Amino acid sequence: MATIKDVAKAAGVSVATVSRVVNKSPKASKSAIAAVNAAMKTLAYRPNANARALVNQSTNTIGVMVSDVSDPFFGALIKAVDNVARSHNKHLLIGNGYHDAKVEREAIELLINNRCDSLVIHSKGLSDQELIQFAKEVPGLVLINRHIPEIAERCIALDNQQGAYNATQHLLTKGHQHIGYINSYQDIDDAHHRQAGYLQALTEQDLSLNLDYIVAGQPTDEGGEVAMTELLARKLPITAVVCYNDYVAAGALAALEKQHIAVPNDISLMGFDNGLIAKYLHPKLTTMHYPIQTMAEQAAELSLALAKGNNSAIHGKVFEAILVERLSVAKRV
Amino acid sequence: MATIKDVAKAAGVSVATVSRVVNKSPKASKSAIAAVNAAMKTLAYRPNANARALVNQSTNTIGVMVSDVSDPFFGALIKAVDNVARSHNKHLLIGNGYHDAKVEREAIELLINNRCDSLVIHSKGLSDQELIQFAKEVPGLVLINRHIPEIAERCIALDNQQGAYNATQHLLTKGHQHIGYINSYQDIDDAHHRQAGYLQALTEQDLSLNLDYIVAGQPTDEGGEVAMTELLARKLPITAVVCYNDYVAAGALAALEKQHIAVPNDISLMGFDNGLIAKYLHPKLTTMHYPIQTMAEQAAELSLALAKGNNSAIHGKVFEAILVERLSVAKRV
Repeated sequence: MATIKDVAKAAGVSVATVSRVVNKSPKASKSAIAAVNAAMKTLAYRPNANARALVNQSTNTIGVMVSDVSDPFFGALIKAVDNVARSHNKHLLIGNGYHDAKVEREAIELLINNRCDSLVIHSKGLSDQELIQFAKEVPGLVLINRHIPEIAERCIALDNQQGAYNATQHLLTKGHQHIGYINSYQDIDDAHHRQAGYLQALTEQDLSLNLDYIVAGQPTDEGGEVAMTELLARKLPITAVVCYNDYVAAGALAALEKQHIAVPNDISLMGFDNGLIAKYLHPKLTTMHYPIQTMAEQAAELSLALAKGNNSAIHGKVFEAILVERLSVAKRV
Repeated sequence: MATIKDVAKAAGVSVATVSRVVNKSPKASKSAIAAVNAAMKTLAYRPNANARALVNQSTNTIGVMVSDVSDPFFGALIKAVDNVARSHNKHLLIGNGYHDAKVEREAIELLINNRCDSLVIHSKGLSDQELIQFAKEVPGLVLINRHIPEIAERCIALDNQQGAYNATQHLLTKGHQHIGYINSYQDIDDAHHRQAGYLQALTEQDLSLNLDYIVAGQPTDEGGEVAMTELLARKLPITAVVCYNDYVAAGALAALEKQHIAVPNDISLMGFDNGLIAKYLHPKLTTMHYPIQTMAEQAAELSLALAKGNNSAIHGKVFEAILVERLSVAKRV
């Protein structure tokens, strides 16, 4: 590939002049602009994004870190950020953190070292303290799906407790009183808060709390299948189950099918996320819609505004999950 | 943020010396290294990836263009490339092309302008000729899911015709003779080749070809539902249907369910891709496994090797889709 030196030589100007033309500096003369543009065309020279970024001390890039891009939940998040980026003529650099502190740290460092001045970060592995440090260093850093009180105005989060509370409430209004809960065994806020929401709903109805009704496992369909089988083995008079997410519900469904227990006639099931698979399950899954698209769009806009130093009317936001009724919940008979 | 100039000033050396230290040039003296490192630490200076890239005339970045990152198929592709990138201490820049020539062109230009010297490109919108041009310009460019004879050694593709042939063949061996085909209406090789594979299998069995058995629609579940309803309205003695992909099969399933036609007892269904949803459908979908993970890994390795100028033992590859038997196909009774 042709370099900036080749262009300078062909145009008969200095490298600094080529740089001025490429960066559209007002100091470039008309004749220099003409000579440089002609030389760039002849040599098929591509103005180097790195050279531009050096001059501007920033890139046109938004950095996004998610847990795992192959999970459609994060795919939806990235697509929403990409749409906002495109509307601002920016592009995306992405990193996977895999919920691991070390991997997340490296991914964020990499995005910062690549001069992403806007960052949308989905971190579950790093401590509040470390994220606060990163936020201090990068004014355009926004956290998604996490709430840290000290930097609440930089957080776009979901009220997980309210979501699980509403899911449980939906089953209570359908007459269920013996409701199980399959949680994720991950030590993350999402799991703690969702379980708290489930317990809160039962407490408010003066239903006795029995921790035998709760089982935790991997937040996957395999985990859901194991957990549901475990719950059935406890021989409780359960008529409904709240699941940590849709994958867990899919696994629970598989376990129930193997035991010839009909959903929703024998046991009702609630998911969480309203992800890609919810409508493909049989019966179609009643679940809590996680508004990840809207949240990711707002996170991206917030991040761009903060990076520009626009701090007016900036505030984080806590979203609520919305009930989506399909066919996996029935009235208790 | 501190700049390279701030560091030079604090360390009492020139900017060029800081650059040498950052880029680990052997020309940097021990005392300069000590002074610069101390200054960088004090100022919390991050060595600028753009500055490094300028010196090296390359970045540590692999560029990936897919159609739409929110589709789990492309999520799986990106994850596989990311795994290869990480093992080589590289990271990813991604772009969405949305199967549109203009958007694809812009996305590829952007990756090249950001000095990605390795590129894994999934393009359906651009012509062979334009992709050949890009391949000439960037030695590390590899195409995935596309076969262009002139640059076959740079293509990691799937034999779509063979895949659809094998899908149809599977139904033939189960005794079906009246087999429908729901194609995608997109004007892309995948659609043409899969339909050709379906027709080839019927021809080899000396079955009469009747184009009424073929209907085309959007390659989505909505499209599949419309297409299946259309096919049913034709009142043909169909006992099995090959679908363009798993989403189309999901839609066909929904249409059949609404008409109280049982799968697989009344009509057998074949998908294509073995994507995320295949195992969640009811009945679980028999489909052709698209080995996108392996293909993406090989594309990434090939791209890195080519970018390094390592042309020995380089060759493109055409993969075959593999039959995955689940529960949506039965013997014709």
